[in-house]
Amino acid sequence: MSASPYTESIGRLIDELTKLPGIGEKTAQRLTFFLLKAPEEDVKELANALIAVKEHVRYCSVCGNITEQDPCRICRDDRRNKQMICVVEEPNDLFAIERTREYSGLYHVLMGTLSPLDGIGPEDIRIQELLVRLQQASCEEVIIATNPNVEGEATAMYLAKLLKPLGIKITRIAHGIPVGGDLEYADEITMTRALEGRREL
Amino acid sequence: MSASPYTESIGRLIDELTKLPGIGEKTAQRLTFFLLKAPEEDVKELANALIAVKEHVRYCSVCGNITEQDPCRICRDDRRNKQMICVVEEPNDLFAIERTREYSGLYHVLMGTLSPLDGIGPEDIRIQELLVRLQQASCEEVIIATNPNVEGEATAMYLAKLLKPLGIKITRIAHGIPVGGDLEYADEITMTRALEGRREL
Repeated sequence: MSASPYTESIGRLIDELTKLPGIGEKTAQRLTFFLLKAPEEDVKELANALIAVKEHVRYCSVCGNITEQDPCRICRDDRRNKQMICVVEEPNDLFAIERTREYSGLYHVLMGTLSPLDGIGPEDIRIQELLVRLQQASCEEVIIATNPNVEGEATAMYLAKLLKPLGIKITRIAHGIPVGGDLEYADEITMTRALEGRREL
Repeated sequence: MSASPYTESIGRLIDELTKLPGIGEKTAQRLTFFLLKAPEEDVKELANALIAVKEHVRYCSVCGNITEQDPCRICRDDRRNKQMICVVEEPNDLFAIERTREYSGLYHVLMGTLSPLDGIGPEDIRIQELLVRLQQASCEEVIIATNPNVEGEATAMYLAKLLKPLGIKITRIAHGIPVGGDLEYADEITMTRALEGRREL
């Protein structure tokens, strides 16, 4: 019969959970009731994991990857091919590539993309750091693996133009029909890219 | 190139998040990367809200509702009609009824439903507590508001049979077409219930 039927701490947890992406009021309520029923240690484990992630995780001063030790595991690894740098937007893109276990070079995380409409220019993402890196170390190839959307493509174009004068080979990841995908359901732009990127067999 | 591309504390947070209902590996990764980018205070607020909910929230010794003070706000409220007890499965069902602002009686939270297949019998949910309550206090009506599914209906039937000898009026919430719902899309059982429950206008 009062404004909120919940107790103060339940209301507060629901509020905090709704701040997370993809979690609305209903999901937050459901999670809260789950947590109320869960053993206290489990909830404390989650709370501690949250705090630990903020306390231990920092950005690698070389590549910008998230790490607990600086430089990160990849930058420290002597078996890695230091002649290749793969440029990605975010650490999760880096992890997506690592999962393939096919790439053995280094990375450079931009921490965003160029997006003039949102006021994000070249000085707001880690482009300067990339230039410094390329000038200091010898590098043969820069693979641009930004996402295949408007901002990602614009960022790829900008980087290609900026890095060409350094005499380094600049490549872009291939676009096309995803493996297991269906030609019938491919959109026109993906289909066009798949045709443009055709290879001799 | 190692087994998990994540750092230890990131892997741990992802693990903890996947324990939540409806959160799989991908969502847990997405939430983790969001939290990595979020301000440290926001993440600590969430962690503290989690701890607070477990430390402050307990169950009302009278009705079984979740509360920070015992007895709960509803049981303490003198304006409530103490002659009516509405029996629900879980605290969130209680909140769903409270949101209507139409019910002014008390509640009794069963903390589950009878479910012989899962080994949940009458002694595993708060039925004994309900009997004790009904014997100690005067009550005119018990409204059974368990969910309209197999377990909820079985629990309602069991309670009705058990409480009838006490000479208390036992009622069940109405089933029918939801307000705003479409007859065309109603399933047969709901439609049958809606017909059975028809009222004179």
